[in-house]
Formats: sequence, structure tokens, C-alpha cells
Amino acid sequence: MKEVHAVFPGSFDPMTNGHLDVLSRAAKLFPEVTLAVLFNAKKADKYLFSTEERVEILREAASNLPNVKVDSFSGLLVDYLRTTGATVIVRGLRAVSDYEYELQIAHLNRQMYPRAETVFIMAATRWSFVSSSMVRELASYGADIAKMVPPAAAEALYRKFAEQYADKV
Amino acid sequence: MKEVHAVFPGSFDPMTNGHLDVLSRAAKLFPEVTLAVLFNAKKADKYLFSTEERVEILREAASNLPNVKVDSFSGLLVDYLRTTGATVIVRGLRAVSDYEYELQIAHLNRQMYPRAETVFIMAATRWSFVSSSMVRELASYGADIAKMVPPAAAEALYRKFAEQYADKV
Amino acid sequence: MKEVHAVFPGSFDPMTNGHLDVLSRAAKLFPEVTLAVLFNAKKADKYLFSTEERVEILREAASNLPNVKVDSFSGLLVDYLRTTGATVIVRGLRAVSDYEYELQIAHLNRQMYPRAETVFIMAATRWSFVSSSMVRELASYGADIAKMVPPAAAEALYRKFAEQYADKV
Amino acid sequence: MKEVHAVFPGSFDPMTNGHLDVLSRAAKLFPEVTLAVLFNAKKADKYLFSTEERVEILREAASNLPNVKVDSFSGLLVDYLRTTGATVIVRGLRAVSDYEYELQIAHLNRQMYPRAETVFIMAATRWSFVSSSMVRELASYGADIAKMVPPAAAEALYRKFAEQYADKV
Amino acid sequence: MKEVHAVFPGSFDPMTNGHLDVLSRAAKLFPEVTLAVLFNAKKADKYLFSTEERVEILREAASNLPNVKVDSFSGLLVDYLRTTGATVIVRGLRAVSDYEYELQIAHLNRQMYPRAETVFIMAATRWSFVSSSMVRELASYGADIAKMVPPAAAEALYRKFAEQYADKV
Amino acid sequence: MKEVHAVFPGSFDPMTNGHLDVLSRAAKLFPEVTLAVLFNAKKADKYLFSTEERVEILREAASNLPNVKVDSFSGLLVDYLRTTGATVIVRGLRAVSDYEYELQIAHLNRQMYPRAETVFIMAATRWSFVSSSMVRELASYGADIAKMVPPAAAEALYRKFAEQYADKV
Repeated sequence: MKEVHAVFPGSFDPMTNGHLDVLSRAAKLFPEVTLAVLFNAKKADKYLFSTEERVEILREAASNLPNVKVDSFSGLLVDYLRTTGATVIVRGLRAVSDYEYELQIAHLNRQMYPRAETVFIMAATRWSFVSSSMVRELASYGADIAKMVPPAAAEALYRKFAEQYADKV
Repeated sequence: MKEVHAVFPGSFDPMTNGHLDVLSRAAKLFPEVTLAVLFNAKKADKYLFSTEERVEILREAASNLPNVKVDSFSGLLVDYLRTTGATVIVRGLRAVSDYEYELQIAHLNRQMYPRAETVFIMAATRWSFVSSSMVRELASYGADIAKMVPPAAAEALYRKFAEQYADKV
Repeated sequence: MKEVHAVFPGSFDPMTNGHLDVLSRAAKLFPEVTLAVLFNAKKADKYLFSTEERVEILREAASNLPNVKVDSFSGLLVDYLRTTGATVIVRGLRAVSDYEYELQIAHLNRQMYPRAETVFIMAATRWSFVSSSMVRELASYGADIAKMVPPAAAEALYRKFAEQYADKV
Repeated sequence: MKEVHAVFPGSFDPMTNGHLDVLSRAAKLFPEVTLAVLFNAKKADKYLFSTEERVEILREAASNLPNVKVDSFSGLLVDYLRTTGATVIVRGLRAVSDYEYELQIAHLNRQMYPRAETVFIMAATRWSFVSSSMVRELASYGADIAKMVPPAAAEALYRKFAEQYADKV
Repeated sequence: MKEVHAVFPGSFDPMTNGHLDVLSRAAKLFPEVTLAVLFNAKKADKYLFSTEERVEILREAASNLPNVKVDSFSGLLVDYLRTTGATVIVRGLRAVSDYEYELQIAHLNRQMYPRAETVFIMAATRWSFVSSSMVRELASYGADIAKMVPPAAAEALYRKFAEQYADKV
Repeated sequence: MKEVHAVFPGSFDPMTNGHLDVLSRAAKLFPEVTLAVLFNAKKADKYLFSTEERVEILREAASNLPNVKVDSFSGLLVDYLRTTGATVIVRGLRAVSDYEYELQIAHLNRQMYPRAETVFIMAATRWSFVSSSMVRELASYGADIAKMVPPAAAEALYRKFAEQYADKV
């Protein structure tokens, strides 16, 4: 059996503790895991952080996981898988989730690239209600988001909303 | 990284093509997969097939998957995992599913045995509407279930409901 | 185009106003509608009303719908459809519903008998929370169920639970 | 009983095989079916295809269904129904679906125009994960969408994204 | 036990009969209820009615509920609660609802301000399918929305879409 | 405004930490809260603990909440409310829940007794996956349930399954 290479794709705008939790679990299951940051050109003006900033946050957050690498891609995920030889797509499941949407995407990816398999891993319940979009919204009001995201993401949010976090920058 | 040992637990009363589909996918992801047939003493009189019959059907269905073994257990799944050293629980997700129930069980197992991780794998859409209980119900009326279960399970059902399947026994 | 014959199958134990509402709507859509009362031999001791009683309640409730007939059947629905030549299965959808279970059954029926199509019709919102099992439970405590079921069903329930409804029998 | 006229409304931007599947089933149930393409002025700049293009794709896809006509409308669906005398609204149900949203719309339409009834028909499971928005997204990346949409829609997508499909135009 | 002060927050753009129904019920449960109109600066150009207009509609609709006050706020709800000393957040639950989204928000608010508790109250089933966004959409087409919203909201909608409601202004 | 009397009804067979969490929150919202243990005669042989045992566990668990009383009832909840003058029904909402069933019951209770209102309160996420039935199942295998239920319930479970918990009795 060939070594399995897994990809955990996402926007990670920014990474949350839920993402980090799923990543740590995936790193125990598969010999090689790549965090793949999506840049969607059509949503270029919707991102809070640039691809480089998002990659940098992931690098710091994953620095103690030796079999995890960070990369970025644009275009179709299945094309990225073909290029890299990865055959596993990791996705997190939340108690409160877009479960059906996740299934839809996974079935389409399977139809387009049957060699790859999507596996779903649950985040811990305490992260069930944390999402990147919620974190961005909260941070824009200066809310305390330190417990919801890795330190590197918190610092990036403090800098981005410096006006709201005058005491922390 | 140690070789990962995955367990796919269930009643398999009897195995369906949906189970077989999930199994085949799991066998590509993990070096070692054990199909573990649950015998729940409290439901002893609810099973259509004995543990031995269920194990036998799984053995035939999985015979061409070299890294798959078949076993049976009773009691708590987490105790079975502790005994065998397995650290992955494989569960199938159906489009039409008891998704929330699956999450509940997975979170409880995690709480009782944090070393093990549950991963969810999707069956193909064409098996979305096939379940063991539905197959048992249909077979009791002599319906054509040959396309819903592996050959060994179909034959076992024909024998069990011989009266309904006079032409097939 | 041949005249379409629709069947509205169910246990109707007893018929509720939600069932009656769906029936009235179906009777406007299809030239011929048969209310088909299921007798499931395996659940024989679970019914509150006998097949004859259930048929009788439906007959009275549907008496002013000229294109509706009442019948009963046992075994598989698809076998009943084959026998009668019906090609439409009518099912009600409730806001609070076993939607996924309904889809599962409909897909299985389609797989076993592709000639027939299941169509789903919504009951009015005011019946969304009324089900036969709930009505049976409530009536066993003498609750006022007159607004939840057709008169014939209410009277049958009063007789069945005469002790609880001493003032109404 | 008067002949029933059914309308299958939608944006169809573009038609998918799921739409076509539902249409074929509806055409067996009702004597007359009209595919009604919605033009929503407020979303005028969101459509990939013009109303004329969408109508043209539907015409080609439905050309072998003699009791199906194609039309377009703007404004409220209930006003379109009043004008045309149609009394049935056909909507497709997907395993993965916006089921609750569909129910909401259907109840509102019923409240505004009680003469019309919404009936829900299931697409085949293999189309469960195909939606117009997903097809548009995939086509913008040059993905193979030929198995997801009728030929006329595929050709229209190839022309629209000619740069991505250089080999097919 | 201190008197409990409850806040019913929302965009109320405009208030619907569902909102009014939930408000009336909350006013029977808690000694003091404040309707708090949210002004979200980032969505400033998405509102149909100004904060002042929305407040005015609520004032008229709630005029016969002596323990209800109307207020407006911007920023985080938890900051508004801290300022006012309120400890209960009232939210309506609809049969057809964004239930999971509501739970997510409630858990985040609890995490940020544990002193406050969210309580969910059901609107009557007849309002299950009425939402502000649907009402705005319908009114833009001149549909009859008089039965879906309080009189003050209906009049405001007639004025806003005067062209569509020429006979009512 | 009259003092509001709230009832938190349930089987509590046995009470879990999720129930206790909801109770503590309800006790801050309403001046008077009664925990009402249901005895359903039709399910008499399904209970693990007698009504007296269940009441006793609740009494110990709620002993530090001065405005909480424990009571038991049989028959319809609405009849119990009429007798006691209570006008609020408290129910817990779990992330993984029988949400639709809860709504159904609440609407029926409202229809039968409009004076009473059901309010839903969320348990903390860490109790989302704990239910009485799961706890009973786990305890029957001797699993460690000490973190899932109040001490009085744990002790009662140890005694009930003394054989499994030889070291704890």
C-alpha cells in the first residue's frame, strides 16, 4: 500500500481553533497532510487576509506538526489533487454545519476525480460554533476572539482591526 | 508514524452494498481495516442473522480486499478498540442519514477513548437509500433485493425467507 | 395521455385532518385517487383500529369527493400498484416531518417499480403538528381531539377510549 | 374534471439533468406542462445566460416531450398562474436540498393564490448533487460538465467559457 | 430574585406578524422587554427602511404592550446587553427556520457574555413561512402583504413601493 | 404582572448534566421553577428508575437552587399545568436534537392550553451529546459515566448496575 497523502483544503480566512483541531487529528491518521489555502479569483475582493497572510498564519499554527505542510492553490481542487498526487480530502464536520453542502461538494469531487476520497473528521464540540466568517465579524467590532483562533491568527486580526484593538497592538 | 489500524463496526444484519462501498474506500485509506460485527446481548432476539452468519457474509464479500479482516465483538466499542490497538473508527455517511445520531455516538466515543478518531466516508449516491432494516423488510415480502446487497447476503436472505423466494432456493 | 390513477397509501390509524387536507388537494390534481389502507401483518397488534374500522372512517371522510375510492392492501405497495395499474403515489409533507424517511421510501419504490412516481403535497400549516400517533396518545388521556381529526375518526376514538370520554359516548 | 395545466418554474441558468429528469416525470403526470423561465429584474446582472438563451436550451432539451411548452415570465409566479390558468406548480426535490426554503415558497404561493397546488417530484439520486450554480462554477474552470447538463446546455457553456474549453468550441 | 430584563433584538426590516407574535408572548413571560433594532453599518445600504422608520413601525405595533420599550443599537449585541443590564435575549423559532444559525449565534453570545441567556419562543404556525426578506420581495411586486405584517409596516411598504400600490397610497 | 411559574417536565431517567445545566439557567430566568417527573403508565416497564428514585435524584441535584421544587405527574402535561397554575414550559435544546419533535409537542400543547408558553433554553455544548438513554446504555456496560450525570444519578446507576461497577459500590 502506497503512503497516503491527504489534503485539507479551505479558505482559512483566518484559520480557527476548529480548523487546527481537525488538522491535528488528521495528522495522526495520515502519513502526510497538506493544508491547501484556496485563492478564488472571483472572490478576490472578499478576503480579509491575502493568500500570503493566510499561509503564514497556518505555518505558525502547524509548526509543531512534522508531517504537515502548507501550500496554496487556485482553480479546481481536483486539479490540485491530480498535480500533487494526493488521494484524500480532509474536511471538518461541525455539529452546527453546512453538512449537506459539504456532501454535495464531496460527491461532485468524487464524480470529477474518483481516485480521491473525502473523509470527514469532527472538530471538538467546543469549536462547533466557531467559523471564520463569525470570527471576522466579531473582530471588526473589537470582540475578544483570542480563545477562538490560534495566536498567529489573533495577532493578524489585531493588526487588521488596529483601531478596535488599540490596547493590543 | 505507526501503522494505522481502522475498525469499521456495525450490526451488518445483513451487509448491504452501501457497507461494501464504504469498506472498499476505507481499505484504500488505511493499511489495516477490521470489519467488526457487533453482538448486542440486549437485542439478541432482534437480529435476523446470527453473529456467525453475519461474519460469514462479510468474509465472502470482503474476500478480495487483502488488508481487511473480519471479527466480532460485544460490549462497548471503545473497549474493543483498547484491546485491539485500533485508533480509527470508520463510519459511512448517507445522503439520507441519521447524521446527528452518528455525531452523538462519535462524540461519546471520543470522550470515553480520546486516542481513537472517527472518520466518516460517503457511500455512493446510488446506495443512499439502502439500509439493512429496509432490506430485511423488503426480503420478508419476497422483493428483489439482489441489487442492494452482496451475493452472499442475497443468498442468505433467500434461505431465510425461503417461502417468499421459492424460485430462488 | 392515459388517465392517471393515483394512490394515497398509509396506515391511517386513524385518519387526521392533515390526511384529509392532502387528500382533497390530490383529488383536484388527478382524475382518480384511491385511499389505500395498509395492513402490515407484522404490526398487527400495534394498530388501534382494525383495517375495517380504518376503511370505514376514510369512507365517511371522503364521501363528498366523487373521484376518491377507498381500498386496503397488505404486502408491498409496489405490488398493489402493479395490480391496480396506478402510476402515482401521493404522500403528504409536513413542515415537521420525517422528510428523509419519505425520500428513502420513495426512492426504493422507484427502484422496485420505475413506472410509478411519488408526488409530495403539503398539508396546510395548521395540520403540521398533527400525526396519527400523537392523536392516539392524546385520546388515550381523554384530550380534546375533535379539531384534529374528521368527525368519523373522533367518534371512533370516543368509543375506543369510552372511559376517558364518558361525557361524549 | 378539467384538464390540469402544470407549470415548472425556475431560473434554469442553465438547465441541468436534474431539471430534465423532473420535467420528464411531470410530463407523465399532467396533460400539459409549461417550463416557465423566470426573469427577475433585480437579479438581471447575476444571470449567466439571457432569458432567450435559457429558453432556447429548454426548447431543445424538451423537444421530444409533446405535452411540454416553454415560456418565460417576470414578476410574481402567482400572477403568471392567474394569467395562464395553470393550477399546478411543479418543483424538484433533491436529497441534498433547500427543502425548507421550498416549503416556505410553496406556503406563500398557496396563501396568495389558493387555487394552485405545489407538487414536489424527486430527481433521480444521481442528480442529487447537481445544481445550476455548481455547474456554472465548474464550467468557469473548464471542468467536464457534459454529464451534468443536457447537450444544449453543455454547448452553451462551452461557448460562454470558450477560453476554458478551447478544444470543444 | 432581581427583575428580569429581556431584549428582543433584530433587524425588523420591517417587523412581521411573526415578530409581533413572539413579542406578545415574551411580554407575558418577562417583566420588561426591549425591542432592539440593529443598525449594522456594514449593511447600511441593504436596509429597505431606515433605523428611524423601523423603530417607528415597532412603536406603533407594540403600543398596547405596556412593558415593552423600543430602542436601537449598533455594534455587538453583548455590548448592548452590558450597557442596559439586560440578561435575557429573546429569539423566535419558526418551523421553517435557520435553527442551526440561531444556535450558533446564541452559543457565541453566551461565550462572550455568560451572564445573558438566550430563550427561544415559537411563533404561531400560521407565521412560519413569513420572513422580512420575503415580505420585502413580495411588496416590491405589489403583492398583498396586509395579512403578513402589522398595519404600520403595511403602510410603510405601500409608501415605499408607491408605484406598485397606486390604489393604496 | 403576576409572578411567572415555570415547569421543566421530563422523564429524567436519570437526570443528566445537560438537564442540570438547563435547570440552572431556567432558575435565573423565572421566579419559580418546578421540575416535574413524568410517569407514563404505558411505559411503566421501560423505566430504569422508579418515579421515587428519579424524584430523589433531582432533589439532591437541585438542592442548592432555592426557587426550584421537584414534583411528579402522570397524564397530560397541560392538565398538570392547569392544576398548578404554571404558565411556562421549559425545554432544553441540544445541538444534536430532536428539534422537530420538540416543536411538534410544543405546538400541540399550545393548541390544547394556549395560556402556557414553551421556552427553549440551550444546554452548554459540552452536554450536547449526552442523553438519558445513552447514559443508561453506557452504564449497563460499566462505562465511566461520572462526568455525564450529577453525583446522585451516578450513585444510583452504580447501584443499579452493581455487577458492572463492583469497584464503586
